[in-house]
Amino acid sequence: MKKPIAIQGVKGSFHHEVVCNYFDNQSDVVECMTFDTVIKTLLDEASDEIVMALENSIAGSIIPNYALIDNNHLSIVGEYYLDIQHQLMALNNQAIEDIKEVHSHPMALLQCKAFFKAYPHIKLVEAKDTAEVARQISEQQLKGIAAIASKTAAALYGLNILAQSIQTIKENETRFVIVKRVQDNNNQALINKASFKFELEHKRGSLASLLNVLSDCQLNLTKIQSLPKIDTPWKYAFFVDVTFDAYKNYEKAKSIMTIMAENFKVLGEYKNAKR
Amino acid sequence: MKKPIAIQGVKGSFHHEVVCNYFDNQSDVVECMTFDTVIKTLLDEASDEIVMALENSIAGSIIPNYALIDNNHLSIVGEYYLDIQHQLMALNNQAIEDIKEVHSHPMALLQCKAFFKAYPHIKLVEAKDTAEVARQISEQQLKGIAAIASKTAAALYGLNILAQSIQTIKENETRFVIVKRVQDNNNQALINKASFKFELEHKRGSLASLLNVLSDCQLNLTKIQSLPKIDTPWKYAFFVDVTFDAYKNYEKAKSIMTIMAENFKVLGEYKNAKR
Repeated sequence: MKKPIAIQGVKGSFHHEVVCNYFDNQSDVVECMTFDTVIKTLLDEASDEIVMALENSIAGSIIPNYALIDNNHLSIVGEYYLDIQHQLMALNNQAIEDIKEVHSHPMALLQCKAFFKAYPHIKLVEAKDTAEVARQISEQQLKGIAAIASKTAAALYGLNILAQSIQTIKENETRFVIVKRVQDNNNQALINKASFKFELEHKRGSLASLLNVLSDCQLNLTKIQSLPKIDTPWKYAFFVDVTFDAYKNYEKAKSIMTIMAENFKVLGEYKNAKR
Repeated sequence: MKKPIAIQGVKGSFHHEVVCNYFDNQSDVVECMTFDTVIKTLLDEASDEIVMALENSIAGSIIPNYALIDNNHLSIVGEYYLDIQHQLMALNNQAIEDIKEVHSHPMALLQCKAFFKAYPHIKLVEAKDTAEVARQISEQQLKGIAAIASKTAAALYGLNILAQSIQTIKENETRFVIVKRVQDNNNQALINKASFKFELEHKRGSLASLLNVLSDCQLNLTKIQSLPKIDTPWKYAFFVDVTFDAYKNYEKAKSIMTIMAENFKVLGEYKNAKR
């Protein structure tokens, strides 16, 4: 039997929406309150795959999640882009004037900050998970408190949407990845994207030379991020995503990169989900 | 008279430590509870310069702060690297066994998470500012609550340090920048670092060509970060830092970049503070 998929958050969270879209609505989930617990569930084999947010168009990469994948030697086997629309929701008999506090995840609060400038009487309170707040409001019949969460959460917990898509930037895409303990994408014909990491000495032109190789091998760069290596001054780690048409081109680039860069490591090979 | 310097947080915060080190101990500060307020203080001319954290070695870039500088057309005029050491502190008569809750900034809690695994009875609570919690514990004589903050905060608010340097990664450097409304670094001889932003079409090799130019002009890349442009699929914005020995080399690169890249914009020219 297929094991449940571990996610951060509860049912109705954006991670859960990704599970419903990437897998199907019937997929069982393990609700975890932190990304650390998500990883533990995978390592303990209570779950064989997990879903994790990795970057969004507003705040950029979620570096600690990259570190969790990297340090635990896990593999990205898929990706999914979710258009995150934040809905303000409360119990049915509540108007926006009745709301004294809005509880949600810090990222959701940050993204909706401008909306609340018109409601200075509302206090913004940080919470662990967007959907968890919706569930609590529903279960404990909390008056005066609103959640910022998904439409799925409103439907699941029977809350009334007071305002739709309240995030400042209307296009709000978050990239999620599906992660397993080991790479098991055997069908190379389906693979057209890869994520990897490498290190370089701080030598002029070293990154340019490497990107020239990627370009010569017909790879397209879709993401690049440098991070100074902790404990090693003047050494940089780079996280790079590339897309390609032919797996053999990628293989060629890989074999050159292994020689040119230090500690070259593939974090995942998968199907590009970006339209 | 010199106007006070706006910072996020209160006296004793890491931002305040940067003011004391970059300027001097006598510098007056405006204590702001959010980065938005810091920016407003600068735009309203209540302050002529501000200090902002921009990236750290664990979590990477603080993208919203980049956006604040970029969108408000401000200029980076200096940088400072602070080795952030987190101290656990409480009232004098408290032992670690007496502590029920630790309140601190989410980033500080994240960095010290491993330490608290040995103390499962302690609840971690997110707060706005590291030093603000220390001040509250002191002023309200709060028992059972500890703060994670700087040594300066412990000294300033008369708290006792229960455990030193409790962050997981002992080398914990954060990069702060000094920001003004306009660039006023007139002495080109002192300038050997610059931050800029540009956009590129998603065309194979476009970034590699640009980095070749930087390398040809003798510039060293110290940071690169791509961000997909919101509302413009397949267009990328890049945030890049470079160091150089001669300002004229940088000027040459700048004039080529202006032609090669789209929306090339200098975010700041300043003295490299990295040893």
